[in-house]
Amino acid sequence: MNETIVTRLEALRAKMRAEGIDAVYIPTSDYHNSEYVGDYFQLRAYFSGFTGSAGTLVVLKDEAGLWTDGRYFLQAEEQLAGTGVDLYKAGEKGVPAPEAFLAGKLAGGNVLALDGRTVGEAEYAKIEGALEGVLIRTDFDPAENVWADRPAPAARPVSAFPVEYSGRSAAEKLADLREEMERKGATAHVITSLDDIAWLFNLRGSDVEYNPVFLSFAVVERTAAVLFTDGTRLEADAAGSLAEAGVTIAPYDEFYRYLGKFTLEDSVLVSETQASHRVFAVLEGKTNVIRCHFTPVTVAKQLRNDTERVNVCVAHRRDGVAVVKLLYRLDKEYRSGSVREGDRRLRTELDVSRALAGYRAEQPNAKGPSFETIAGYGPHGAIIHYEPTPETDAPLDANGFLLLDSGGQYLEGTTDITRTIALGPLTDEQKTDFTLVLKGTIDLAMAKFPEGTCGYTLDILARKALWDAGLDYNHGTGHGVGHFLCVHEGPAGIRRVPGDRVDQIPLKPGMVISDEPGIYRAGSHGVRIENLVMVVRAEEEGFLQFETLTCVPIDRSAIRKELLSPAEIDWLDGYHAWVRRVLTPLLDMPEAVWLEQATQPL
Amino acid sequence: MNETIVTRLEALRAKMRAEGIDAVYIPTSDYHNSEYVGDYFQLRAYFSGFTGSAGTLVVLKDEAGLWTDGRYFLQAEEQLAGTGVDLYKAGEKGVPAPEAFLAGKLAGGNVLALDGRTVGEAEYAKIEGALEGVLIRTDFDPAENVWADRPAPAARPVSAFPVEYSGRSAAEKLADLREEMERKGATAHVITSLDDIAWLFNLRGSDVEYNPVFLSFAVVERTAAVLFTDGTRLEADAAGSLAEAGVTIAPYDEFYRYLGKFTLEDSVLVSETQASHRVFAVLEGKTNVIRCHFTPVTVAKQLRNDTERVNVCVAHRRDGVAVVKLLYRLDKEYRSGSVREGDRRLRTELDVSRALAGYRAEQPNAKGPSFETIAGYGPHGAIIHYEPTPETDAPLDANGFLLLDSGGQYLEGTTDITRTIALGPLTDEQKTDFTLVLKGTIDLAMAKFPEGTCGYTLDILARKALWDAGLDYNHGTGHGVGHFLCVHEGPAGIRRVPGDRVDQIPLKPGMVISDEPGIYRAGSHGVRIENLVMVVRAEEEGFLQFETLTCVPIDRSAIRKELLSPAEIDWLDGYHAWVRRVLTPLLDMPEAVWLEQATQPL
Repeated sequence: MNETIVTRLEALRAKMRAEGIDAVYIPTSDYHNSEYVGDYFQLRAYFSGFTGSAGTLVVLKDEAGLWTDGRYFLQAEEQLAGTGVDLYKAGEKGVPAPEAFLAGKLAGGNVLALDGRTVGEAEYAKIEGALEGVLIRTDFDPAENVWADRPAPAARPVSAFPVEYSGRSAAEKLADLREEMERKGATAHVITSLDDIAWLFNLRGSDVEYNPVFLSFAVVERTAAVLFTDGTRLEADAAGSLAEAGVTIAPYDEFYRYLGKFTLEDSVLVSETQASHRVFAVLEGKTNVIRCHFTPVTVAKQLRNDTERVNVCVAHRRDGVAVVKLLYRLDKEYRSGSVREGDRRLRTELDVSRALAGYRAEQPNAKGPSFETIAGYGPHGAIIHYEPTPETDAPLDANGFLLLDSGGQYLEGTTDITRTIALGPLTDEQKTDFTLVLKGTIDLAMAKFPEGTCGYTLDILARKALWDAGLDYNHGTGHGVGHFLCVHEGPAGIRRVPGDRVDQIPLKPGMVISDEPGIYRAGSHGVRIENLVMVVRAEEEGFLQFETLTCVPIDRSAIRKELLSPAEIDWLDGYHAWVRRVLTPLLDMPEAVWLEQATQPL
Repeated sequence: MNETIVTRLEALRAKMRAEGIDAVYIPTSDYHNSEYVGDYFQLRAYFSGFTGSAGTLVVLKDEAGLWTDGRYFLQAEEQLAGTGVDLYKAGEKGVPAPEAFLAGKLAGGNVLALDGRTVGEAEYAKIEGALEGVLIRTDFDPAENVWADRPAPAARPVSAFPVEYSGRSAAEKLADLREEMERKGATAHVITSLDDIAWLFNLRGSDVEYNPVFLSFAVVERTAAVLFTDGTRLEADAAGSLAEAGVTIAPYDEFYRYLGKFTLEDSVLVSETQASHRVFAVLEGKTNVIRCHFTPVTVAKQLRNDTERVNVCVAHRRDGVAVVKLLYRLDKEYRSGSVREGDRRLRTELDVSRALAGYRAEQPNAKGPSFETIAGYGPHGAIIHYEPTPETDAPLDANGFLLLDSGGQYLEGTTDITRTIALGPLTDEQKTDFTLVLKGTIDLAMAKFPEGTCGYTLDILARKALWDAGLDYNHGTGHGVGHFLCVHEGPAGIRRVPGDRVDQIPLKPGMVISDEPGIYRAGSHGVRIENLVMVVRAEEEGFLQFETLTCVPIDRSAIRKELLSPAEIDWLDGYHAWVRRVLTPLLDMPEAVWLEQATQPL
């Protein structure tokens, strides 16, 4: 039994009893619909023990359920053991969605409680629609008076993101936004998404681990713009550039009250997928609400300008140097035999993770990892979002695969790369798996497609080689990536089924997306090969293609060349020649020698 | 000026003036949301002159517009010339939908008139939603008192489709349907789609050209079932099998009145994409209406049973014999030089069309063409749905491409095949085009995919070779095909964008779909290569694949072999060996000798 979680749930249930509540709905969210949330908002993890990045917890009087997706099934099973919380594998056949589950458990007159600030408007509508006759309290913070040592909300320093990196000033971006508001007939626009605010005002913070954002709201009007955040933490350059762009500062807590000023004279544009239920509850009926799917800032932010397009290549070169240093080290310690077993420094998964963070930190303008490194050796590679902890940290050995998924933040952009590395001899199955996954990575990278094409149309290119062998992977093929912002940035993406976030979002020049097929054999090994690609114009009028940004060799020793087509071999040889050309001048001699050999044609 | 059309529109406008109507909306539809409609319902063609299979006409006081899709842009441009009707290319950038166009033209208090029996409920909702303040009359038949020589509604004989061909009796199908109604909580189900009614009751008619359906409605209740159609035209076997299944007959015109019997005690299941606005207008408020996207009959009808799966192969063999006889003849007259130019019998497109119809008619159980044959020589091949008429009929010559898209109805199933045939020397561009299209046909045919995959996921397989060359085609890749029913049968299909009809419809064993990429070079030539494929289980657990049904050689003389991958060459050689094995015993000696040579490995 997991006593910690059982005790926490008991405390929550005591509060539920005291307030006459039958069920509590706890999403993984802050007040900004963020994918990754600060410590203050980690309620779902606190009450369930499950630490994955995505999940929804539902607590009833005598049972509790946690919903998460395919990336986390194995991890959630382990972490929920003994907590009394049941795992619901979201998206699997026959598994009800949380709201359908609640509909089956609650009767008319029952009370469901949630915190309306942490539930999106679309999500709330789904819950409300499913629960006829159930009373829904939206002012309930499950942690209040229960989570004794809850951390304070983050309020770390916020600095300017200078125009030589952002390419456009906040004033220019505001002017574009106001034009778009004009087109939509809006006199005001409420922005609640943290990365959109950071991008719009050219600011960066560190309130959420790995994501250079800061807790804030923004309201942009025809002439005014207000940023709701703790003003004292703005560094001088940040305060200066805001003043220049005509932005005033107000306390974070003033936000909901400020919204009260809008009347039926105003037309307020709000994103129904990004703003919380609370925002709509405050505005609806008092003013004209214009609903949009995403804020125009989200749409504009994806399309890198010329400065960003040049810089993101710089960031990937620096990242390539860091990763190659690690690959060189692994080769020396495990494959080439030049370091004796007893003298190895990279003994475990965590050693690898730390060494890589160190190599990245040495790079100019490095700003830390862009997410928790996944370093999964052997069977751990099959756990899609495995992150080694001191408890799970596995020793490496000179055989099989190490799956290494990591990324860095740089002033020039955000990186995200997965390499699956042979530490020694491989089985035939391992080589075949590696090659089929590699075919997927390459085939998607080679795609050419007409303007207007959405990600779901291209998804099969990454899966086809696996499908031909009767294999598949249970995660998306690609996610959008921010620019010195969040490593997962919607809505652009490449997924099998058009979901809410990617539906009808055509790929456009300047979008950066990951290309990361994989295969996972539970208990044995996992393979994933991930490059970031940027959408660029093709030579043919009206067509687009991808430019691969990630600049790190792919392990040739794991490839069964006879499974690759001539076009795939050409692509890989060309890629390796480019990697060699770009990185060699940036490496020390022994690493450059290693790279020379690692990038030979197949 | 096209006086015929101008005069007809003037008569309609006089009626509009007399009745105070500002706009008339004329879809291409009968009272059954059919894609192809009988002569009685050809209002859109009557008032516009445009004879394509799809289009919507909007008539205002001083202008008129016709909307049609990419297949028909060239044809519509030609046929609308001089009519005063403007062409709106549906789906093209910046072209408003008809309802948006109307919204821009009509003001509050204006009157829009339409025939609620010919407008689907979903379509009506869209129109109503777009036209705030506009009054909509739904009882307006534009042809009444205007179209003097309007043909009577068809009422041709209806015969039984025996169980040795259908595989399941009407009684069994009704039992399945009643189970599904039970699951949906329905006490009655209204069916308005003609092919669903024909399939459910194992009947076939010929009220709509090429489609063996008959004008009818059906209402299925827990114990009763009523078929609304002219009972006197039922042949003895049909009447007998209906009586056996407990089905009673009522006059066609009784249908709407019969719906009046339902009260709030009943729950009536109706498809909101298939039933007309009138059906909903009659039922809503009087009874409980349960809306479904498609009737359960539509869903069941797609999944061929074992008898149908065997038979559809038989149908395609017979069709293969007919098409090969024509290919042999074309080869003799144009390519081999064994017939002197002056002695040719297939001199024009229409000659080809008639000869092919003749060869098909010779086959056992042949029931005529499944659609109007497209025989497009040279530049006509670039008009996607070109059908030769005496006015357009082009003479053939011993060079370039003849594009031939045709199909047959057989008691064993429906066929649909396109072959592009070299009548003599080809240009390099023609050969390259042919080969790129062929790659698409093959690559889709070779697909293997997990259960749950929808058509839109596979679409790119047919386009990829073209996209890689910066080319594309402006039509869907595949449509569902009925079983001795409509050659276009929804909702299964393979399209680039998930539309209403294919969205979330996974491919399932027994579905038959076309695989028909193409390329069209206006003024020069067109290439399309179409096979029908059936979804079958793959060897790998949980995976599906296609079995190609169409059994006719593909013109090897038009192929640039160096553009095909080894896997594509293997597929084509294997396909040709199968065609030879299957058809040779069914052919006369000279044709068999020709086939032997036409099916040699590349």
